[in-house]
Order: sequence, then structure tokens, then C-alpha cells
Amino acid sequence: MEVCIPLIPGRGNKIINKADSMDIRKPTLFIDERIARDNIRIMAAKAARLRVQFRPHFKTHQSVEVGKWFLQAGVTAITVSSVTMARAFADAGWNDITIAFPLNIKETEEVCALAARIKLNVLFDSPEQAAALAKVLKQPAGFFIKVDTGYHRAGVLPGDRETMEAILSVAAAGPLEFRGFLTHAGQTYMAGSPEAVLQVSHKSRALLAGLKEAYSGRSPGLMTSVGDTPSCSMGEDFSGADEIRPGNFVYYDLMQLRLGSCRFGQIAAAVICPVVSVYPSRNQALIYGGAVHLSKESLMQPDGSKIFGLAVPITGDRWSFPEGEDYMVSLSQEHGLMRTVSGWAASLRPGDLVAVIPVHSCLAADLLKDTFTSLVQ
Amino acid sequence: MEVCIPLIPGRGNKIINKADSMDIRKPTLFIDERIARDNIRIMAAKAARLRVQFRPHFKTHQSVEVGKWFLQAGVTAITVSSVTMARAFADAGWNDITIAFPLNIKETEEVCALAARIKLNVLFDSPEQAAALAKVLKQPAGFFIKVDTGYHRAGVLPGDRETMEAILSVAAAGPLEFRGFLTHAGQTYMAGSPEAVLQVSHKSRALLAGLKEAYSGRSPGLMTSVGDTPSCSMGEDFSGADEIRPGNFVYYDLMQLRLGSCRFGQIAAAVICPVVSVYPSRNQALIYGGAVHLSKESLMQPDGSKIFGLAVPITGDRWSFPEGEDYMVSLSQEHGLMRTVSGWAASLRPGDLVAVIPVHSCLAADLLKDTFTSLVQ
Repeated sequence: MEVCIPLIPGRGNKIINKADSMDIRKPTLFIDERIARDNIRIMAAKAARLRVQFRPHFKTHQSVEVGKWFLQAGVTAITVSSVTMARAFADAGWNDITIAFPLNIKETEEVCALAARIKLNVLFDSPEQAAALAKVLKQPAGFFIKVDTGYHRAGVLPGDRETMEAILSVAAAGPLEFRGFLTHAGQTYMAGSPEAVLQVSHKSRALLAGLKEAYSGRSPGLMTSVGDTPSCSMGEDFSGADEIRPGNFVYYDLMQLRLGSCRFGQIAAAVICPVVSVYPSRNQALIYGGAVHLSKESLMQPDGSKIFGLAVPITGDRWSFPEGEDYMVSLSQEHGLMRTVSGWAASLRPGDLVAVIPVHSCLAADLLKDTFTSLVQ
Repeated sequence: MEVCIPLIPGRGNKIINKADSMDIRKPTLFIDERIARDNIRIMAAKAARLRVQFRPHFKTHQSVEVGKWFLQAGVTAITVSSVTMARAFADAGWNDITIAFPLNIKETEEVCALAARIKLNVLFDSPEQAAALAKVLKQPAGFFIKVDTGYHRAGVLPGDRETMEAILSVAAAGPLEFRGFLTHAGQTYMAGSPEAVLQVSHKSRALLAGLKEAYSGRSPGLMTSVGDTPSCSMGEDFSGADEIRPGNFVYYDLMQLRLGSCRFGQIAAAVICPVVSVYPSRNQALIYGGAVHLSKESLMQPDGSKIFGLAVPITGDRWSFPEGEDYMVSLSQEHGLMRTVSGWAASLRPGDLVAVIPVHSCLAADLLKDTFTSLVQ
């Protein structure tokens, strides 16, 4: 009984010209194709300019259709966060894939099947993972050692050479090729300022570069691979990194806007929601759009309250800049409450549509993958 | 482009006898059928004993299979939270359905189609909703006025007779039958104690009963309908209510456990997750199970930290009571970090399986509806 990620080309991926001529009745994910393609183009150009390989993370969009936008921008190698995702994109023709998640020993069989079809890289942060795969792998696959450069989620600590040696030793028992060191500096998401983001980025690259140097004597050609959208968006220096794997940047979201990774005009994803009821006496409106559409990811406001999205107007065929602080202030399973502080929001009536900019576009896109529609400009 | 809720009988609904003989490789939702049926039986018996009608909310499980467990317990009328959900259960044979969400004017066409097939009740908290439906409705349908009894999400304030009169007036233009007053006292979820829950419950029932009395002169046979699992689980007095609509109780979860709505042994839903890596030096382990499996719903600990679930052992064909405070402390999209404080947790190795009790079973069940497996005892 697998977790299925439907990535069926064409399904839910209708290209629409005019949002206002569409019959939107339920929460629907809209992607502004022009903005998304622009985001891809800018990041690909940055990678080329700063001479790092570009291996974007496809977990944000999980869409074969959007994947083509990357292909058309010259991308040939991608990152995913699960074996299921890897298989779906392999089925769609992608043949150079890194699964940026330490190997799940329960999935070695599927990993072997993938390695037989495509150029596959896996991650290890434990010798047991390497041993389990080396035992059954028939076709060659690459592997990175995942390094914890401060996020303390997954990875081997940079000073833990014992574990790294153990991984390399057991991996040698199978057709596994050591590619290098990979990290995800997710702590940039907790950084208080762009300066802090860049410091985190610099430090993690330096740690990886040190490891590469320490091991390149016996393994020439090793690479260092770094992650995250905040670092890749804000930085102009990737020294120490050979590859970048940002994912969220294709859509961006409120979280990235707040961090300073993007301008509002670079946000490419919004959830179009019907207005169900309005409550002028408390400056709120109820929309059809809740936790199962936006996710429960929230941002904290200075006053300690949480917000779950930002409602903005729809004009013509796309959404507009915010009119005011018309935040989503609470979410139930299917509904959400928005503040109606701006003049636009205060004039909303039942039956109107609003566009909600999500806090976390990866999660909203995952929840609404069956409704995905892109706007062509 | 609709949001589709796959409720395909049989799909993902395989009855399994032994969890340890199953080949679990990815995050999978497990429902303990015996416990769930017990929860249903107990609540149905309570409703009968306290002489209220039982109209359980199906948004928690969204499953045709689990719906049959309710049918077999004598349930004939149900509640849902969207038109899509109503249609899916009407297709499955349920013919007495209340959509407990103020009418979305954008969906009047589908509502009319439903009214032609089944006994349907809708909700209004605004005259515009009533007018929009009255204009197009051909077959009779019932409606409740949604009342805000303190949750301040949706609904008309109890003293706002002007809005209620306006709703009744415009509804009279169509084949709409006034059923009564409905509320969801969701503020019980923020109650600090069982006593506080019961006070909230008492107050909201009293408010509805007052409205029923005020209107029963001109509309005999009106009902009052109340919600929520905490009230319905903890209370033994439903005076003032004619109908109860709890939903979460069929599975319960960590949130309900913390509120005091249930014992641990009444929790019927867990997400089985593979252990990917262990980090003994920080008493943590990485599991394959993240925001797209559990949701980002969290509970706050006394120290201000958040938890996203509780990992417990699997023994034989089901999960066990917790060994210790082995909480999920952070979630990314696909992965989660658990604390390994108990002896059991500290002995976990990559490739083991853990059962994660979710914070909010409704959201986990929605995310994992394609993986649902129930355990038969």
C-alpha cells in the first residue's frame, strides 16, 4: 500500500488564459507560469555565472508539467525527497536524479530498480544504510555522504570521520560510487536576517569544502552539494560548493518573502478560494480554503499570533499585490478565516474569489496537486 | 478543476491481520478497526441514552469503508464539511447528509443536484447564501442557521435576530425547510480543563435552546444541533441539544488525549513509519514521515517547544502504549525527527518501523487516504 503521488501528465494541469473566465468553485492551486519560468531562468543563470552545477529540487512542485519548464531552461539533473518521487520523474523521462534523503533501508528494492534505469545518487548518513544497499545493488549508483553542517536534522557531523570511514568501507562492497559530500543548511530558515543567512551558507560550504579536500586524495572528482532557497536566492558567492539544489524558489511563498529571499512579484503560487461569508463587525471573512488546502504551516507575527496565508485580490487573469494585512488568521480542516482590514477585503461578498498566498508553497502544492492550474502570460 | 477526494471502495482499504507480516516501506495509515468500532458504539449508545440524535461527522475518516462501520452501528444520518464530501458519500449510498459549512454560493449547482438525490441539509449564516440557493433550488432541502456561540469562526451571533430574520425571509422564496439552529463550539479545543469544556458546551447548548424556543412558535419541530468531540466525549448532559455531530472521536488523537477526551487505548489511528537513521549522541532518530504524512499540526509543550506526534512501538499486529516521551520534535516535508528518550526508542535501528500517533488524526487521515489500512482484531 504505497503513498501515491499522482504525477499524471495533463491531469489537473490545464493551461488557462484568463482566471476570471474560469469557473472556480473550490480551492484551486494557480501557478503563474511566467513568474515560475523567470525564477527558474534567474537561478539557472546564477548557477552558470557562479560556476556551480544546478540540480534543482522537484519536491516543491512535484509536477511533470512544471518539470518541463526546467527542461526547457536547460536543466538535466534533478533532486527529489523520496523514492516514490524519483520513480515518478524517472517515468517522465528524467534520468539523472539524486534522492536527497538518507537511504530508507525498507526501499532498497525500489532503489535497485531505479539504478538499473537511470543515473541515480543516494545519500548515506549511517553505515547500515550503505551496507543494506551494497548487498543488493546490481547496477552502479552514486552516493553522497550527508553532512550535518548545523541544521541538526540528518547527516554525519563534519568531525565524525569514524562514521564516514565506516560508510565508505561498507559501500565499497557494492557497485557504489562515492560522489562527495552533501548538506542542507535548513537553519537558514531560522536566520534573523539576510546577513545571518549568508553566514550560515558560508560556514556550511566551508565545512563541505574541507571534507572534500580531506578525501580528494583517495577519491578524485568529489563534489560538494548545498541546498536551500534562502542561501541560493540571497547569495552571490558559492565558493566551496560544486552544486546547488534549491527547490522552493520556483514558486517562493510568504515564508521566503519574510526571510528576504524574494520580492512579492516573484511569488508564483496562490490558492484561489471562494468567499463563503463575511463578518464586518469583526473585520473577518470565512473562505473555503483550510488546512487540507494550505497546510497548517504558520508564521508568527510580532504580537505572537499566527498567520496561515495572505489574501490578495484577483484582477483579470491573475492575482494582484496585497492591498493590506489581510492575513489568514485561523484554519480548520476545510475553512479559513481571513482578516478584512483593507478596503478591498472589507468590500468582499459571499461568492467572490480571493487568492491566498501560502506560507509554504511546497506543502500547498502537495495538498492541491489534483487542482493545479497554471496561468500562461 | 475540482479538489478530488478519492473515496473508492476497496482502494487502499485492505484488511490486514498482522502488521508485522506486512511489507511496510513508506508512511502508511493504520486504523485499529476494533477500537474505532468501539468508539462508534460508545458514542452511539451515549446519544441514545441521552436522547439526542446521532449525526456523526465523516470529515475525520473520509472513507467509504469506515462509513460502513457506522452503518453497521445503526447510523443513518451523517455530517460532512464540503459539497465534494457530500457527493462522495451520496454516491456510496448515504442519503441523509448535512453539509456543516455555510453554503458556498459557487457550489449551488452541485447542491441542487444533491438535493434531487438525497435528504440534504445546508447551513446559512448570511442572507446572500439563502437567496442564492433559493433562486435555483428545484427539490426540497433543509437548512440550519449556523450560530456563533463563542468560537467566532462562522455563524450568526445569538442576538443578531435581524440577520436570522433576513435569512428566513429569503429562504422562503425557495423549497427550503427550516430545520433549526446549529453550532460548533470549537472553543472547547482551547479549554484548559474538562470542567472548562463542559462549561463551554453547556453555554452553547443553552444559547441554541433559547433560539429554538424563540422561533418554535412559527416553526414547530425545530432542532438544535451541536458539534465537537471534546464536549460529546466528556459530557453526560446534552440538555438543550437535539442532535450531536462529533467526528474526531472515531479515531481520537494526541490533541484529544491531552484535552482529556479519551484514554490512550481509545486512539484508533497511527502512521507507521520506517526509521531511516539514528543519532544517539543527540537522542534523536530520523523517520520517513513528515508534514505531507502527519500534517504540520502541533501541540505546545510546557517548555514552549512544539511536538508533531508521538512515536510508539509496534508489537505483533498493532501498536503499543508509549514507552516514554518519544515525541516528534520537527517535521520537514517528507521526514521527521523523533526523540529517542525511552529504552525502546534508544534501541531503534535504521530499517525498524515505528507507529506515530498523530496530533490531529483528521489531517493525517486526509493526507494518507491512499495508504489507509485497517487492522482487524
